[in-house]
Amino acid sequence: MVALRQMHIQVITIFRTYSTVMRKLWMLVCMGTVHLTVNAQYVADSTFIKRIADNMLESNTAHDYLYHLTKRIGGRLAGSPQAAAAERWGLQVFQQLKADTAYWQPCMVPHWVRGGKDSAVLVYRDNFDITRTQVLNCLALGNTIGTGKQGVKARVIRINHFDELETYKAIIKGNIVFYNAPFEQTFIETFKAYGKNATYRSTGPSKAARYGAAAVMVRRMTHAYDNHAHTGATVYNDSFPKIPAVAIGLKDVALLNQLFDGKRQQPFVHLFTNGQMLPDTIGNNVVAELRGTEFPDEIITIGGHLDSWDVAEGAHDDGTGIVQTIEVLRVFKALGYQPKRTIRFVLFANEENGTRGAKAYADAAKQRNEKHVFALESDAGGFTPRGFGITASNEVFEKIKSWASLLAPYYGNNIVRGGGGADIAPLNRAFNTPIAGLQPDSQRYFDLHHAITDVFEAVNIREMQLGAVNMAALIYLVDKYGL
Amino acid sequence: MVALRQMHIQVITIFRTYSTVMRKLWMLVCMGTVHLTVNAQYVADSTFIKRIADNMLESNTAHDYLYHLTKRIGGRLAGSPQAAAAERWGLQVFQQLKADTAYWQPCMVPHWVRGGKDSAVLVYRDNFDITRTQVLNCLALGNTIGTGKQGVKARVIRINHFDELETYKAIIKGNIVFYNAPFEQTFIETFKAYGKNATYRSTGPSKAARYGAAAVMVRRMTHAYDNHAHTGATVYNDSFPKIPAVAIGLKDVALLNQLFDGKRQQPFVHLFTNGQMLPDTIGNNVVAELRGTEFPDEIITIGGHLDSWDVAEGAHDDGTGIVQTIEVLRVFKALGYQPKRTIRFVLFANEENGTRGAKAYADAAKQRNEKHVFALESDAGGFTPRGFGITASNEVFEKIKSWASLLAPYYGNNIVRGGGGADIAPLNRAFNTPIAGLQPDSQRYFDLHHAITDVFEAVNIREMQLGAVNMAALIYLVDKYGL
Repeated sequence: MVALRQMHIQVITIFRTYSTVMRKLWMLVCMGTVHLTVNAQYVADSTFIKRIADNMLESNTAHDYLYHLTKRIGGRLAGSPQAAAAERWGLQVFQQLKADTAYWQPCMVPHWVRGGKDSAVLVYRDNFDITRTQVLNCLALGNTIGTGKQGVKARVIRINHFDELETYKAIIKGNIVFYNAPFEQTFIETFKAYGKNATYRSTGPSKAARYGAAAVMVRRMTHAYDNHAHTGATVYNDSFPKIPAVAIGLKDVALLNQLFDGKRQQPFVHLFTNGQMLPDTIGNNVVAELRGTEFPDEIITIGGHLDSWDVAEGAHDDGTGIVQTIEVLRVFKALGYQPKRTIRFVLFANEENGTRGAKAYADAAKQRNEKHVFALESDAGGFTPRGFGITASNEVFEKIKSWASLLAPYYGNNIVRGGGGADIAPLNRAFNTPIAGLQPDSQRYFDLHHAITDVFEAVNIREMQLGAVNMAALIYLVDKYGL
Repeated sequence: MVALRQMHIQVITIFRTYSTVMRKLWMLVCMGTVHLTVNAQYVADSTFIKRIADNMLESNTAHDYLYHLTKRIGGRLAGSPQAAAAERWGLQVFQQLKADTAYWQPCMVPHWVRGGKDSAVLVYRDNFDITRTQVLNCLALGNTIGTGKQGVKARVIRINHFDELETYKAIIKGNIVFYNAPFEQTFIETFKAYGKNATYRSTGPSKAARYGAAAVMVRRMTHAYDNHAHTGATVYNDSFPKIPAVAIGLKDVALLNQLFDGKRQQPFVHLFTNGQMLPDTIGNNVVAELRGTEFPDEIITIGGHLDSWDVAEGAHDDGTGIVQTIEVLRVFKALGYQPKRTIRFVLFANEENGTRGAKAYADAAKQRNEKHVFALESDAGGFTPRGFGITASNEVFEKIKSWASLLAPYYGNNIVRGGGGADIAPLNRAFNTPIAGLQPDSQRYFDLHHAITDVFEAVNIREMQLGAVNMAALIYLVDKYGL
């Protein structure tokens, strides 16, 4: 009995050992297979992304597209002949690249015109009490009204912070409010400085008008060592009178501050601007599609905005985003990539002073009950890439982050929370679509943002192309694996 | 007995439980203390580095130093009056910043002069068999001899790779070898393309002379879309005749290749260059010290090279490295930082065509039996930083890498193996000193390297300053914790 029982136990032990071993072996095989599969996928993805990069870096097309858009067409504010030319060009490019379909998506856009040269002359007394004049570098802010032919000649009231409007309210009426809040130099991510300061440009005129100001001057927001002004949108609050508003260059700001700091509190400025808001007109989003082979109803959007301010060539804002978008289509076609999902390439209309293109795109998506699974925008300049900012659920964020090592060779691996773009934000609001924004290095952006320095020559083609490589890679990964 | 024994066991159990709990508690306290200490140190380091960054980003000094060095002094090749002016300026700056000591360290340097304008005229037959001429954008390579007043007029032999010298040896004699190896576009780290290609510039002339070539033309190594040539050092092999050598711009290279590809294999070039190597002259490393308070004999070196090629302003190569080095001293003084170890700030002489300053510095260190614990160079351009390349033991590498999160807010956290700089490499060879090189983004570097485009305007001051922030931070950490 004992022997039998022992044998029995032995058999059971052997069997158990055997099955444990087999189970472990089987697990190892499974894990190995999974591991091998994962690894093979990683190699395949990495290889495909390298093909994207090689193709883009060895091609001149990005250079040629940007040259045409900036030098041949130029600044292209909504409603301008240049905006229309850019729309025609964009459609033609999409057709030449043999997208499955390419079309205009019309929308009504605001039509602001600068109307002539902006001018500001400072009149002040020097240390010898002699009256002096100094022409200030200025640009009227976008959407603002003009001063009329007589201009506005008035005393300048320096306001360092919105709070001071209340402090100085007794002397603001009829005078020119000069917002002197400095652009933060110590924020490493320069868009944070912009986030803090841009409100003086966008809401400052109406806030001053509330106290009866005749006009507004804001400091240029820049890290550059020059005296250029900038433009950029003002949004009037309809509760208060619309008043003219300009930005002025920082060397002129320094002169003004010298006068105020020297207690010669009576500088005057004679301001002439000619801005005018004409009736809304027709603009177009330019759209191309590669139709999905497996999930054609799932839409991935990639884009930038085609319009730009009038004063320069809209090279970094947002010519580079446009060219990157086109380059992603071009390289997908060149490599014969057939997406599982439908990829929409969108050159948005009127981002700068209305975002009407963005609204039209989201509205149409709602009407058609489209399924928008992801959207990516490039509108932070064509500088050397650092990564992507993501607005999405934790799960989606972590999934995108898990691809970072595939983007690292192209410097796109810094995946952070928050970000997207003004043109795709409505998709996120409407459908909770995960959205992403390319984040290039931001050190040079405010050297040229909305200023006359935003020209073709300020773009390094390789930096722009590296951004496009990362955009194509991310779109490819989202298309392949879903979110 | 049983009761007693049970009591005994209970007491022992309680005691054991008590001591286990106490031991665990004690361990927690210890770990907590260690954790708190580590955390407090981290906060202190992070705070100090933020003070460095704030100070640098709010200061104009980096801009002003670079402006003086590039615009007021200009290109400053060893032996030139500009090099001497730069040495005087550097010493003066160090003295003004109240370094503990500042001095010149003299050394003999080569004295090459360009001697006049370089010229190359292509003579070829067009499709209608009409003889045409085309002036080529060219620059004589540094250290090369001139062509003499008659110039060199000879047939051009295209060589795509060194291997082809043997293939074409029958026709090379008396003719001009045109090295046509293209600069790699697909390497994301552009210095790798340089590493692969620069040998045609440095060793190509002597390799062609071995086969009796009369002169050499090399392609410019660049990613730029322009037709500028570059200069840069050639190193003659004394076994073969010295022959003139130039680089030519890429649009001219394209024309030459059209001729060769069109089988009109007989383009001629008429070349004039005037280079001359004069007798060695005196140059100086410019050195400043902050003496260590605890370990004054342990020396940390930080530097860049003060010389530059003659054709431009030596802005990125290496004006920015010089200014960053000065800025680290300035900010340490401004913040009242007293280093534990001795920090040497060195503006090296003659990196470009001899590295004699580097040798003199290492030789003096050997003679004085100095203890060099770390050296850091910035000589890869003043672009937005990405990290540091480290040549050191695994242990030292890992220690430096452990500081990455402190550098991350300033984009200096990509710590990789390999790197340093031509001026500090001799220290590594002599003492096995760990060396590091700042690694800025490299996309734009070869747009301007050794070309007329390397001017002040090509530098973004914030990008340069961010590099200096990371350099100061790394020196601070090495000084505080040792390696």
